Amino acid sequence: MGDGTKDTKSSNQMWGGRFASGPDAIMEEINASIGFDKKLFAQDIRGSIAHATMLAHQGIISVDDKDKIVHGLGTIMSEIESGNFNFSRQLEDIHMNIEARLAALIGQAAGRLHTARSRNDQVALDFRLWVKEELQKTEAMLTDLIAAFLERAEEHAETVMPGFTHLQTAQPVTFGHHCMAYVEMFGRDRSRVRHAIEHLDESPIGAAALAGTGYPIDRHMTAKALGFREPTRNSIDTVSDRDFAIEFLSIAAICGMHLSRLAEEIVIWSTPQFGFVRLSDAFSTGSSIMPQKKNPDAAELVRAKTGRINGSLIALLTIMKGLPLAYSKDMQEDKEQVFDAAESLELAIAAMAGMVRDMTVNTERMKAAAGSGYSTATDLADWLVREAGLAFRDAHHVTGRAVALAESRGCDLAGLPLADLQAINPAITNKVYEVLTVEASVASRRSFGGTAPCEVRKQIAFWRARN
Amino acid sequence: MGDGTKDTKSSNQMWGGRFASGPDAIMEEINASIGFDKKLFAQDIRGSIAHATMLAHQGIISVDDKDKIVHGLGTIMSEIESGNFNFSRQLEDIHMNIEARLAALIGQAAGRLHTARSRNDQVALDFRLWVKEELQKTEAMLTDLIAAFLERAEEHAETVMPGFTHLQTAQPVTFGHHCMAYVEMFGRDRSRVRHAIEHLDESPIGAAALAGTGYPIDRHMTAKALGFREPTRNSIDTVSDRDFAIEFLSIAAICGMHLSRLAEEIVIWSTPQFGFVRLSDAFSTGSSIMPQKKNPDAAELVRAKTGRINGSLIALLTIMKGLPLAYSKDMQEDKEQVFDAAESLELAIAAMAGMVRDMTVNTERMKAAAGSGYSTATDLADWLVREAGLAFRDAHHVTGRAVALAESRGCDLAGLPLADLQAINPAITNKVYEVLTVEASVASRRSFGGTAPCEVRKQIAFWRARN
Amino acid sequence: MGDGTKDTKSSNQMWGGRFASGPDAIMEEINASIGFDKKLFAQDIRGSIAHATMLAHQGIISVDDKDKIVHGLGTIMSEIESGNFNFSRQLEDIHMNIEARLAALIGQAAGRLHTARSRNDQVALDFRLWVKEELQKTEAMLTDLIAAFLERAEEHAETVMPGFTHLQTAQPVTFGHHCMAYVEMFGRDRSRVRHAIEHLDESPIGAAALAGTGYPIDRHMTAKALGFREPTRNSIDTVSDRDFAIEFLSIAAICGMHLSRLAEEIVIWSTPQFGFVRLSDAFSTGSSIMPQKKNPDAAELVRAKTGRINGSLIALLTIMKGLPLAYSKDMQEDKEQVFDAAESLELAIAAMAGMVRDMTVNTERMKAAAGSGYSTATDLADWLVREAGLAFRDAHHVTGRAVALAESRGCDLAGLPLADLQAINPAITNKVYEVLTVEASVASRRSFGGTAPCEVRKQIAFWRARN
Amino acid sequence: MGDGTKDTKSSNQMWGGRFASGPDAIMEEINASIGFDKKLFAQDIRGSIAHATMLAHQGIISVDDKDKIVHGLGTIMSEIESGNFNFSRQLEDIHMNIEARLAALIGQAAGRLHTARSRNDQVALDFRLWVKEELQKTEAMLTDLIAAFLERAEEHAETVMPGFTHLQTAQPVTFGHHCMAYVEMFGRDRSRVRHAIEHLDESPIGAAALAGTGYPIDRHMTAKALGFREPTRNSIDTVSDRDFAIEFLSIAAICGMHLSRLAEEIVIWSTPQFGFVRLSDAFSTGSSIMPQKKNPDAAELVRAKTGRINGSLIALLTIMKGLPLAYSKDMQEDKEQVFDAAESLELAIAAMAGMVRDMTVNTERMKAAAGSGYSTATDLADWLVREAGLAFRDAHHVTGRAVALAESRGCDLAGLPLADLQAINPAITNKVYEVLTVEASVASRRSFGGTAPCEVRKQIAFWRARN
Repeated sequence: MGDGTKDTKSSNQMWGGRFASGPDAIMEEINASIGFDKKLFAQDIRGSIAHATMLAHQGIISVDDKDKIVHGLGTIMSEIESGNFNFSRQLEDIHMNIEARLAALIGQAAGRLHTARSRNDQVALDFRLWVKEELQKTEAMLTDLIAAFLERAEEHAETVMPGFTHLQTAQPVTFGHHCMAYVEMFGRDRSRVRHAIEHLDESPIGAAALAGTGYPIDRHMTAKALGFREPTRNSIDTVSDRDFAIEFLSIAAICGMHLSRLAEEIVIWSTPQFGFVRLSDAFSTGSSIMPQKKNPDAAELVRAKTGRINGSLIALLTIMKGLPLAYSKDMQEDKEQVFDAAESLELAIAAMAGMVRDMTVNTERMKAAAGSGYSTATDLADWLVREAGLAFRDAHHVTGRAVALAESRGCDLAGLPLADLQAINPAITNKVYEVLTVEASVASRRSFGGTAPCEVRKQIAFWRARN
Repeated sequence: MGDGTKDTKSSNQMWGGRFASGPDAIMEEINASIGFDKKLFAQDIRGSIAHATMLAHQGIISVDDKDKIVHGLGTIMSEIESGNFNFSRQLEDIHMNIEARLAALIGQAAGRLHTARSRNDQVALDFRLWVKEELQKTEAMLTDLIAAFLERAEEHAETVMPGFTHLQTAQPVTFGHHCMAYVEMFGRDRSRVRHAIEHLDESPIGAAALAGTGYPIDRHMTAKALGFREPTRNSIDTVSDRDFAIEFLSIAAICGMHLSRLAEEIVIWSTPQFGFVRLSDAFSTGSSIMPQKKNPDAAELVRAKTGRINGSLIALLTIMKGLPLAYSKDMQEDKEQVFDAAESLELAIAAMAGMVRDMTVNTERMKAAAGSGYSTATDLADWLVREAGLAFRDAHHVTGRAVALAESRGCDLAGLPLADLQAINPAITNKVYEVLTVEASVASRRSFGGTAPCEVRKQIAFWRARN
Repeated sequence: MGDGTKDTKSSNQMWGGRFASGPDAIMEEINASIGFDKKLFAQDIRGSIAHATMLAHQGIISVDDKDKIVHGLGTIMSEIESGNFNFSRQLEDIHMNIEARLAALIGQAAGRLHTARSRNDQVALDFRLWVKEELQKTEAMLTDLIAAFLERAEEHAETVMPGFTHLQTAQPVTFGHHCMAYVEMFGRDRSRVRHAIEHLDESPIGAAALAGTGYPIDRHMTAKALGFREPTRNSIDTVSDRDFAIEFLSIAAICGMHLSRLAEEIVIWSTPQFGFVRLSDAFSTGSSIMPQKKNPDAAELVRAKTGRINGSLIALLTIMKGLPLAYSKDMQEDKEQVFDAAESLELAIAAMAGMVRDMTVNTERMKAAAGSGYSTATDLADWLVREAGLAFRDAHHVTGRAVALAESRGCDLAGLPLADLQAINPAITNKVYEVLTVEASVASRRSFGGTAPCEVRKQIAFWRARN
Repeated sequence: MGDGTKDTKSSNQMWGGRFASGPDAIMEEINASIGFDKKLFAQDIRGSIAHATMLAHQGIISVDDKDKIVHGLGTIMSEIESGNFNFSRQLEDIHMNIEARLAALIGQAAGRLHTARSRNDQVALDFRLWVKEELQKTEAMLTDLIAAFLERAEEHAETVMPGFTHLQTAQPVTFGHHCMAYVEMFGRDRSRVRHAIEHLDESPIGAAALAGTGYPIDRHMTAKALGFREPTRNSIDTVSDRDFAIEFLSIAAICGMHLSRLAEEIVIWSTPQFGFVRLSDAFSTGSSIMPQKKNPDAAELVRAKTGRINGSLIALLTIMKGLPLAYSKDMQEDKEQVFDAAESLELAIAAMAGMVRDMTVNTERMKAAAGSGYSTATDLADWLVREAGLAFRDAHHVTGRAVALAESRGCDLAGLPLADLQAINPAITNKVYEVLTVEASVASRRSFGGTAPCEVRKQIAFWRARN
């Protein structure tokens, strides 16, 4: 637009120092990715070594050049790992930073490394390798979290607590059973993680810019060298695809949601009003004035992470919406979302495994709460159906009258004398008291997956065999 | 609060007619789910039949009662299917509507159906069955969409078009290859669908309210009768879990994103400026004034559906955040999100399969565009490396000069006389022209997954064998 | 594609009954909006009347035609309101349905109504009018909700309860003060609603398809007739813009978040463990077996609505992402999101106003909880700084020792004899007991906006004057 | 849980180096915020100076202590600004880092600064100040972006281009008019920014932990000193509220959506097929092989940022969902979302202002495209209604025939001889040609806000007076 000098100056003044040097500074800031993609250095180097080795094996570059490249890349790996590598933002990204350094180290042979590949398949490779490793790490961490729950479940297979629906006492359950509910959740998360690894286990390298290449490369060889099951089957899709990143984020979001439910329970259970658990000092913060105060900060932060991960998921889904094939620069925004969600998820799982292992369970408070609120009313009704042959509707009616009576007496159902119960329904016998205690209630629920200690132990064994 | 009469009246006036009858009307409106969960009637009836059959088999109810129940449920199924069922909002949900009708039809035996189950496991069962069937339907529809692309890919395995990156011409590819990129995407979607079915293939019925039951039920029997692999393993988790719904939404969101990319391409390719494809009348709308105008309405609506599905995904993730175990009423909000996303996804896939099949491909426009913009410059550089032994950096330099020369002449690279090319680099021979045409360019990219017609055909065969 | 007959048939079989009639059925289903946009009938008719009146005033159509149009539209309005209008999906949308009916009623004059306008500005007008009215309704409902809180705040200006941070008891506050926190939140929501009305108060009609029109229309006249401040200033923007819908959704999302916090508190406070409030029967559901059980279903559903509204917000933001100007069919997906969020928000506000008015506050449980947990420890420290001249750090130390002593004695801070306190620090006098009760603690916090009853009453008066 | 030693060790091995030191390391990592909240140092120091000044003015601390505090804080400000401040993660956050340094610098007086405040109101203050400043910066940047569009609009008030709907040519418009559509959008964004500043312009300091304070503080004084309109009115709400942050994110999301639409247009218009604009070298990237290639990287990245901002919005909405009052640690996750979105928004606006100013407009390509596709068919129909007195329906029919004839001749409407037009309808006169050119078409649309150059200039003047 014309000369534009005046305008540029005035707008520069407006932007202040940050964009003082005008368009070039803005472009560098918006365009450069080295600030975050340097995280991929190890994947980039491994990928380049596999590529160079294949090129030499296929006779596309000489063995001598390959040796120089591999040696040079090894040097760079050491430099970065030891903190002696000078990252440059003008070189934009991790690929150009490493390439430039390689040229400085080994000269002309460096230029041959880029034969039959492009930044498009290179970045797809690096990122896919990173996500695969992160998924494997997540799998191991979930295994550890499941282990933590299995330990507590075993310890508390008989500990009675109130089973809640709508956060109101419904029926007694065991704390071990409650722990095993989380084992199921995190077990499903781990299963999703394993399938995601299976889905992404294809090597993108060799797709080149988008069309493949005329060089006689062997994509199966690089795939194998890098630990992939096989190469991808379509070069256009290969450089356009970020499904593996979104799938990671979806899985992280569901797992984060599970963690948020656990976090919410810990927060509520730690209140003086509930008092079911007490967090260790390591996972709570105190106050210099109120020594009794233990704030469940870690649980709250875990609960919040679910929002953060949801944000990353929606961000990448939105970024990819409506992008024509093949590679578009929009896709560069994929990495920070995944890195951030991965860090949040790791931290949240680690914190939760720690809290679960360290927290003190107040079994007295749990049991007392389990017994309050006529939580065994359902057991009475079931007994009437089963033992006294009443129809369901009648059984409910009798139970309602018994609860009303107990309420007026200020006692529990088990506290009502037999005579009083028989006055409501003569079919009631002394045996009814066997189902009115919380222990009897939980012991009776022996259906598959039920809360009876014997059933809980069966499921613990099932999971121990699979963890 | 006090009498509250006055306030209630004034606020009623404010709310106007809708909430005129006060709290009860509000509660009915916010609480009732029959408006949407009647969609689950068939699943509910199938579940009840399986449950009653098992109860009788286990001796928990009589065979006579079971027979009455099964017959009554059959009658209700017919009534609903034929539109002769009177749904009542005061009966809140589909379960109560069916239960009340069953009582009217068969009397007291109806009350026995609810033995050893609760609305919590019943709704979990109905919804899981529905989602499983929807996943199976989605699988079939994706198979059809893949088939549509395979047909077009075969037809256009040799049709040359520009391969874009950043929506700028990069290298020539074939339209068949481009079609196969979508086969890969929808193939991944289908693979995710299959794994999701595997993940949810567990029967919730028998978890009861949350703790299991003391009745001697056989959960493996109901699981088998309803087509599930096995029963769930933890009753608390069973009534608290909506992972299967979120997983469906995640998969739908990724698939919707793929569809949006295709939709975007169709919109852009249908412009007069591109003119690569022409939609059939069935999938476009015209204008009474401008007969030349064909608006790609269907493609635009498919593109928009991705937003809608993302919304449903984030809605359910948010709803489930931080819910303590076990069932909370918040979870009732799960169904509308899934129903809406499922309808959007079905419609979008069907519309796309139709568009892909019906659209006319303008191969001349594609080819002309493929040849413009020096799209074979990479081929020249590669030739120089491969045939003339130049180092990559030198090859790039030579190519740059050749392009500049062609630009100044207003011709294509293939239009430069050999003498002019040799003036730039004497190593160039007559053979170079073999790589400078778009046909030669695509034919040369024979790497695995590359754009060469022979490679494309190989991948078509691969997918045909799996579709 | 070729004849396609075979393929179409096979895919039809796959789609089953729903898409049995092929492309046309799919297109009708994805394209038609009458299923939801009929909600705009009143706005459409009002807009058309204003447009026709202006056209006649400007001499573009005859007064006679105008009269016929206005009369015909009046008839249609009555037909729709009385349920005697036959909506047709083949006529696609509300505009065409009304237009076709008008032609049937008044003949050729109907065709003149569409002079100098297009469906693009017509739909923008209808939807903007609808959103404006919904915002006005929301404003009134928020005023009612604020009124409900003001009533409870006044009633409980002196009711002491624990002030929580991290859901742990921190310092005593009054329930009136807590109620007023919600008044501030919903007051902010209302302020945002008012600004949103101001932002959207421009009339789109007259922008025509996208470029304006050559007819000598008077857009200020239609703007005024329809109650808008002024006409929009750019015709391309006018038909491309859905900011007003997104702004509505943003405001609804923030308000929904506030409601979810209140809902969460009601759920927690209704547990037997807290027992701070008891919901009325109208807003809770019971159980036929457990008469003591009152499930806070309405509160849980309100909490869930926040997810639903977030979903709608993200849906529309995603739909609008990257749409080139001007109108694209993607934008047709705007209405269902807004309608659904509006219904959710209305219902949630109404339910909350009802719950706040109806719930019973257990002041004894609140007070007992407020006094536990050494909640006045801060008051002791502050007293030491203020009255005994200690430095903050020393005051904290002394307080810590006092709390430890009380803990070991199993009493409250106020339960420690003066001698024991003086043994810790001799500067402590009898006057300290004045700050150690929860009443004294709340009464002392008289800073502007603080929890002291006199301050709370001041803020109640402030809001009463503005409600 | 027992001693736990063994388990902790094994899990440590699993977590690897990162969590090697066990619970404490995890807690520090999840809990510390100094990594991001150091960004608030200037706000924290300004807030503390205002607070200390007020404390001294009210006689709560001595003037001597106040002077030491203010001087010490000045020193710390210099240390941080010059990079000579040693941030410690063990001190958790910016507040504790500054407080600890102040104690080191001035001794005991530092302890008095925290009188009558808490970290809860302190962090609310710092963050609110930061958001307010960011909003002011955003306002200035939007003003600059609007200025860029006004310049281009003026320059191109008469440049004809195709007006698109559905990305299909609809009617001719001017490029100036198109630019002004963006002025309207960014003008609305700026209006929202201004209202957001108004909404948040209340000072939180003095709310203390959550209940206010018993010290005789003057919150109006600190509010005034810090540039706020007034203090907040409810201390519980004050420490629980993050509306201002969500409102910032909502506004950023809508603005980001606008930017994404512009970005999409730039990407499409830069294709060889459209060729409407050419980006400057500063805002595009090239390729070493294909000198003709200019990738619109900056536009693509701007388009992607909308996903990122949507993600932050949904993250914070989710984080705040269902949090009981008052402060919870979840809220610590607010800052990174806002910081990230603010950086993205700033960068995107700056990049767009630069691109708009720098890009070259190809007026020939625009005009040629505007004239193709019978874009003036509507003008012909309108002429027939207006000048030849035809009813609309008949006019459309005639136009349709004329277009069909022109299509068969391969010419434009203006290319048809009068005789041929009169053969279709004899009422057509020579004057019709005045409306068939694109120039005549745009010139005729003089309705308020229409595309006629005179109207566009009127709106430019309107905005110049307000920018």
